[in-house]
Amino acid sequence: MPDQMQHITLARRPNGAPTPDNFSLETAPVPTPGDGEVLVRVHYMSLDPYMRGRMDDAKSYASPVPIGGTMEGGGVGEVLTSNADGFAPGDMVFGMLGWATHAVADAKMLRKLDPNAGPVTAALGVLGMPGFTGWHGLMEHGRPKSGETLVVAAATGPVGSMVGQLAKSLGLRTVGIAGGADKCVLAKETFGFDACIDHRAHADAKPLRAALKDACPDGIDIYFENVGGKVLEAVMPLMNPHGRIPVCGMISWYNAGGLGAGADTPLSAPTLWRPILIKFLSVNGFIISNHWDRFPTFLAEVAPKVLSGDINVVEDIVEGLENAPTAFIGLLEGKNVGKQIVKLI
Amino acid sequence: MPDQMQHITLARRPNGAPTPDNFSLETAPVPTPGDGEVLVRVHYMSLDPYMRGRMDDAKSYASPVPIGGTMEGGGVGEVLTSNADGFAPGDMVFGMLGWATHAVADAKMLRKLDPNAGPVTAALGVLGMPGFTGWHGLMEHGRPKSGETLVVAAATGPVGSMVGQLAKSLGLRTVGIAGGADKCVLAKETFGFDACIDHRAHADAKPLRAALKDACPDGIDIYFENVGGKVLEAVMPLMNPHGRIPVCGMISWYNAGGLGAGADTPLSAPTLWRPILIKFLSVNGFIISNHWDRFPTFLAEVAPKVLSGDINVVEDIVEGLENAPTAFIGLLEGKNVGKQIVKLI
Repeated sequence: MPDQMQHITLARRPNGAPTPDNFSLETAPVPTPGDGEVLVRVHYMSLDPYMRGRMDDAKSYASPVPIGGTMEGGGVGEVLTSNADGFAPGDMVFGMLGWATHAVADAKMLRKLDPNAGPVTAALGVLGMPGFTGWHGLMEHGRPKSGETLVVAAATGPVGSMVGQLAKSLGLRTVGIAGGADKCVLAKETFGFDACIDHRAHADAKPLRAALKDACPDGIDIYFENVGGKVLEAVMPLMNPHGRIPVCGMISWYNAGGLGAGADTPLSAPTLWRPILIKFLSVNGFIISNHWDRFPTFLAEVAPKVLSGDINVVEDIVEGLENAPTAFIGLLEGKNVGKQIVKLI
Repeated sequence: MPDQMQHITLARRPNGAPTPDNFSLETAPVPTPGDGEVLVRVHYMSLDPYMRGRMDDAKSYASPVPIGGTMEGGGVGEVLTSNADGFAPGDMVFGMLGWATHAVADAKMLRKLDPNAGPVTAALGVLGMPGFTGWHGLMEHGRPKSGETLVVAAATGPVGSMVGQLAKSLGLRTVGIAGGADKCVLAKETFGFDACIDHRAHADAKPLRAALKDACPDGIDIYFENVGGKVLEAVMPLMNPHGRIPVCGMISWYNAGGLGAGADTPLSAPTLWRPILIKFLSVNGFIISNHWDRFPTFLAEVAPKVLSGDINVVEDIVEGLENAPTAFIGLLEGKNVGKQIVKLI
């Protein structure tokens, strides 16, 4: 067993979009697990948009990563040593292991994975936090009904692709928004979207709205919100009466700073607020970490569909911890195709 | 019976705040009721903020009043002649009778009032559309729980005073916002608010937020939204996790034009949208006209409380149809104290 590990810390807080010098690759002694803890060798770590929020010190639902602290994140890995009942060397687990090759974790915060239930990377995407986010938001706040129209952005990402595939299976018309023509092909061919709009082909909300209007001849009943910005601006006037907007993210505004100064959109507050009134909309923000009690239900419903191939999965895997910062910066720019994962071993 | 009546038409659409020349007082022959219709002599007519929306030709939940058309509105009056089963001369009724001394109405669209059940003007306020709006929005979308804190603006108006009194009776801390020190006294002494903030004493959202923070030491769980603007801007950062925002109006933006150009507030869309995500807020727009099926339940619950004096009522009554435009312009500026009514007879 090596006595040194690597991890990536937050070197300084970003001002706008993160750059490589916000991160620092460090070497440290492999820690020793205490009572009730296990030492895990991380095989795959997840990169997710929410991590951008943790880099700011703005008040949010979670504490920021301190300067010099290890970047947070979920990962799957193998137990090397265990001081906890129920975990043994060789077990594959999921946990918040950080941007690191090794981690000591409280066994109560780990979930043991069945390696025969499919690839372990699923625990980071389709059967992990992003897939769960899509399922919970759609079913709880989207209240989908057959024949309705759903719009979701980042349609080829792990949240959007889950939302689109579930909605399609429930009889909705699904319209994706993605960055690039290739992603739109993927959205339609792999994830079954009825239509997909390349937001990069539309400089601002107005032409994007025209394209959405063509793709949604009966209006929009559910807008699954994960981006904000010009997509939100384009969508709002097209919402149908009694429409629902689950809100799980606003990635386009993350780099505008924690308090969102309105960087990329001229959208005014009344323009955003008024449709809520005149269309009787239901807008519900949620953070999936408040809902882990429903995770077993999610797994029971969705895992069989992943194994059967009814729900498709696309992963974008880069190799090496040292490449995590660049991959994360790319994720915020939409460069990844599918769930962004870093392979460490 | 006179053969001439008076009514007020929309002479031209307003550009911003309405002015007297947007209205025209006209004389016309008293109409004759057809089959299933009755002729009503209007005794009292209601003035409500939503009427401002009907003066614009912007797309909304209801059609605009056409140029030259009679201004819409609810009224109570006496049946003069009836061609409909169930209605007889002398009956007191509520209906959408318009800004007019007389109206012919489809009997199916009228509600007969019991003159022994209290003053008929209650049908325009506390036991009519505004009171019903407050009750429905609070109970359905506010989901009040004892010990929570509720904030509502226009606290002495017919919606805000209903919301505040109901919430207080359910064990919530109630904090009103009103325009002027006198109204704040009324809010506390007559409507039982625990605290009331004079928004006119605070030039913009920042000092208003500081005052709200003092008045809401445990944060805000329910913000009953009827004003938008600087109040909304002040409130959003103070919302507690899992807070609820029923949205029934945004009067501060109405005069900014139908599409709300953001006249009175620098509030940006991300600043408005982000708390929905990070506080897991539930924001629900509603228009009470979609919910008349619940009106009997409302009346059964609330009418006894009005009769017993558990729910207090304040009305602001001006006399004469010709004074309706000025009273309406004043209403949009917050000059009324309590439910604004015009007495016609």
